[in-house]
Amino acid sequence: MSDFIALDLPLVLLSNRGPVSFDRDATGRTVGRGAGGLVSALSGLAEHLDDAVWVCGAASEEDTVVAGENAGSSILVQTHPQPHLVDGEPEGPAIRVRLVVTDPAAYADFYSVWSNPILWFIQHGLYGRSLSPVLTRAEHDAFENGYAAVNRAYADAVVSEVRSRGGKALVLLQDYHFYLVADWVREQCPDVVLTHFVHIPWPGPDEWRILPGDIRERLLRGLLGSDVVGFHTRRYARNFVLCAAELLGLPADLDKLTVTVGDRVVRARYYPISVDPAALDATQASEEVAAHVAMLRYLFLDDDRQLLLRVDRTDPSKNVVRGFLAFGTLLDQHPELVGRVSFLALLQPSRTDVPEYADYIALIGGVVAEINARHTKEGRQPIDLRMVEDFPLAVAAYSICDVLIVNAIADGMNLVAKEVAVVNRRGGVLALSEMAGAHEELGEFAVTLQPFDVQQMADAFYTALTMPIGERHRRLAAAADQVRTHDVRRWLDDQIVDLRRIAGFI
Amino acid sequence: MSDFIALDLPLVLLSNRGPVSFDRDATGRTVGRGAGGLVSALSGLAEHLDDAVWVCGAASEEDTVVAGENAGSSILVQTHPQPHLVDGEPEGPAIRVRLVVTDPAAYADFYSVWSNPILWFIQHGLYGRSLSPVLTRAEHDAFENGYAAVNRAYADAVVSEVRSRGGKALVLLQDYHFYLVADWVREQCPDVVLTHFVHIPWPGPDEWRILPGDIRERLLRGLLGSDVVGFHTRRYARNFVLCAAELLGLPADLDKLTVTVGDRVVRARYYPISVDPAALDATQASEEVAAHVAMLRYLFLDDDRQLLLRVDRTDPSKNVVRGFLAFGTLLDQHPELVGRVSFLALLQPSRTDVPEYADYIALIGGVVAEINARHTKEGRQPIDLRMVEDFPLAVAAYSICDVLIVNAIADGMNLVAKEVAVVNRRGGVLALSEMAGAHEELGEFAVTLQPFDVQQMADAFYTALTMPIGERHRRLAAAADQVRTHDVRRWLDDQIVDLRRIAGFI
Repeated sequence: MSDFIALDLPLVLLSNRGPVSFDRDATGRTVGRGAGGLVSALSGLAEHLDDAVWVCGAASEEDTVVAGENAGSSILVQTHPQPHLVDGEPEGPAIRVRLVVTDPAAYADFYSVWSNPILWFIQHGLYGRSLSPVLTRAEHDAFENGYAAVNRAYADAVVSEVRSRGGKALVLLQDYHFYLVADWVREQCPDVVLTHFVHIPWPGPDEWRILPGDIRERLLRGLLGSDVVGFHTRRYARNFVLCAAELLGLPADLDKLTVTVGDRVVRARYYPISVDPAALDATQASEEVAAHVAMLRYLFLDDDRQLLLRVDRTDPSKNVVRGFLAFGTLLDQHPELVGRVSFLALLQPSRTDVPEYADYIALIGGVVAEINARHTKEGRQPIDLRMVEDFPLAVAAYSICDVLIVNAIADGMNLVAKEVAVVNRRGGVLALSEMAGAHEELGEFAVTLQPFDVQQMADAFYTALTMPIGERHRRLAAAADQVRTHDVRRWLDDQIVDLRRIAGFI
Repeated sequence: MSDFIALDLPLVLLSNRGPVSFDRDATGRTVGRGAGGLVSALSGLAEHLDDAVWVCGAASEEDTVVAGENAGSSILVQTHPQPHLVDGEPEGPAIRVRLVVTDPAAYADFYSVWSNPILWFIQHGLYGRSLSPVLTRAEHDAFENGYAAVNRAYADAVVSEVRSRGGKALVLLQDYHFYLVADWVREQCPDVVLTHFVHIPWPGPDEWRILPGDIRERLLRGLLGSDVVGFHTRRYARNFVLCAAELLGLPADLDKLTVTVGDRVVRARYYPISVDPAALDATQASEEVAAHVAMLRYLFLDDDRQLLLRVDRTDPSKNVVRGFLAFGTLLDQHPELVGRVSFLALLQPSRTDVPEYADYIALIGGVVAEINARHTKEGRQPIDLRMVEDFPLAVAAYSICDVLIVNAIADGMNLVAKEVAVVNRRGGVLALSEMAGAHEELGEFAVTLQPFDVQQMADAFYTALTMPIGERHRRLAAAADQVRTHDVRRWLDDQIVDLRRIAGFI
């Protein structure tokens, strides 16, 4: 990546999962690095700065031990060539980390009651409202003793890091785990310049009305402690401003996307997150991916056959069941495709402790069996369902698929679509839900899916499979160009430019 | 009711159910009158005018016979003292009616596929989106051959009635069955002045995105054929304007609630529907109600006991299950109330051919049995569940309840709350969902319910039951005054004033 821009102020990052994690093996303490585009982009930024710190949760037992050894202060981890704790001056790129330890029961209420079921369900529109949620005293208590208590602990750590840097810093908060932090940090450190970035969809006021009035008000007021509330798309930012107007009665401008809170103006902005193309290129060039490509070609692409692909967590928001129903409809209505088109689904089981998620996996298995029973021809099953998390296998499949299917009913961004745009070498067509954030950027190069409409999706799959190859390559090249020129570094740089402007440095 | 205001133009009304219905008995053809506040308000208006016609569906076999005898033209029905068909000049108040006959299969697709399940579910937020709806070719076909075809037939009847009146008329269209009519009527009769009133909630764009893109666009464009699209509340009107902006990309003003369509400006307006207080007073004064009151007092109100009441259809949007769960929580947390508080639920079974509705009735029975098993004391069951439709019994219960519970998760207006405000004589407290349209008008006099939050509702019931009697009567008097000064006639007059202004008569 190119050089990072100057910040002029110290940087304090906050996310639930951090850039490093500690463990133990026979040789003693080990240090691992976090994965994913977000962590690598933020890590790159933090490594580059002398005065940055990353506040995150102690996720492992050994994290908690390390945090205890450095109670109330940050640690320095050299990240290259081999990650290790540093005492004194590092001899390579390093990140300063502040590990926050919270009570396990409080953390469970924070994470497994509020963040992942309730907030995730609200923000992805997953509740069947006639029957769920049923909010009781237990949920109220879990908010107070869990979500709010854990937010307070993280906010205290952020405040302590800001204060030790003179009380003025750029603060970047991440995601739906920490909606109460910004307001508390601003109260203690009024000179911070702060962005809270929300990585998942932000629905309109009606969806938020599912939550108790006092809780939805606290969540919104918490976020409004920010200078900028960042989202992936204009629609989410617009919905946020609408919530502030309708649920809090605050003066709001739906065109400028601003909310007035006392004498402050809070801006809702959209910065579409993206991928790290160089890292993807490197993975694609690996021998492991080459081996997978050869295997997948052998299984799915002899004799001019075609391959549809999906790569998702088994989250109900990903809409896997209707995706398969649409594929079944495609084969019903175009029998000439039976035996000539395969659908490879690489699904990573997710949150199987949540009943809706476990039930959803069973439904997926059921619909796959039913379609395979109906349409297997000459020993070839049309759907190959693999419950795996294997990134090199996914990259191999990305590179040779004819159609990528992203049919989420709600998805903050969806990075799989962007990964395929960068990696595919076959003129792969993106079949992209209008409800995925990525559709705002890539929709014009994609075949649009309407995720509740099985017939529309079946028709769209057919359009994608029969699109002339020149058109396929033209669209893919345009999508790849969009992603490569709007990578994850740009996502980060745009936010920092806005914060430096607010701080008066530009 | 007081005199109706002058219209200056002929009037054409459209609703699915009309003001009269024909049947046969041993004596031959019989004529009955429609019930309910809407029909009686519109009937009063139509009876008062020489040049009015009401277009509605032929609902019974005999309706179809009558329509056939008068193919393509309207009939005149004298409404008082005894309703009968008139040939020539009526000798009392009369309504001109145009019965529309449609193909039964088309009507079934219109009514039982699109209007009642799909549009009702979308507009009340009832879909659990991860699994339903699954829209297939069958739903597309039912839209085209059912909803659109039936809308076309009604639109043709409206056009023929407008043309026979010189091509210029005030047109009042009613409800979610006819979203495609306004645009078609305007195309044929550009001089009409037209309001389409939507009697159920209008959600934001995200909910409408569940529908196929072409269908949601046709529904919106159909409605935008109106001069005014009427709703019960500002929130619904705002959501409609937001839909036009976001889903159609039309220029819209969210403050003025206008949408620009070509060279026309369409106004979203809110006119809260209401009740006919005089008719309610008359019912309350009847001997039948007095007998019910005596019985209910004996059953529920001896020894300073208190009565909670709900009167609803068994529609999942009414939130009956969570209402009982909240009552169970109340008794759990306030054992001193056990044996001293009863909950009478008069529920009218509804749409039992829809699986979700049938399932919901079973859930209601289950939760009632469970709470009655837990809290029956000295032979008194806390919940008395009656699956009946009995308006005099309901009015009797209205008049003597201590608390009326309306905890809908979504409800266009909810007239039960307004009926109780007029009829109650015991300082009854309205416990009113913030999601019911009535909350915009009556919320300040009510105890607010947050319908997903069982604990909040239990606390609110307790607040209502323990409110000082003076405060109870003060609030009830204020609510009654609001309803009596904003009755159903005012709802209608306000719309007509707006239309006459648009037509240039004011």
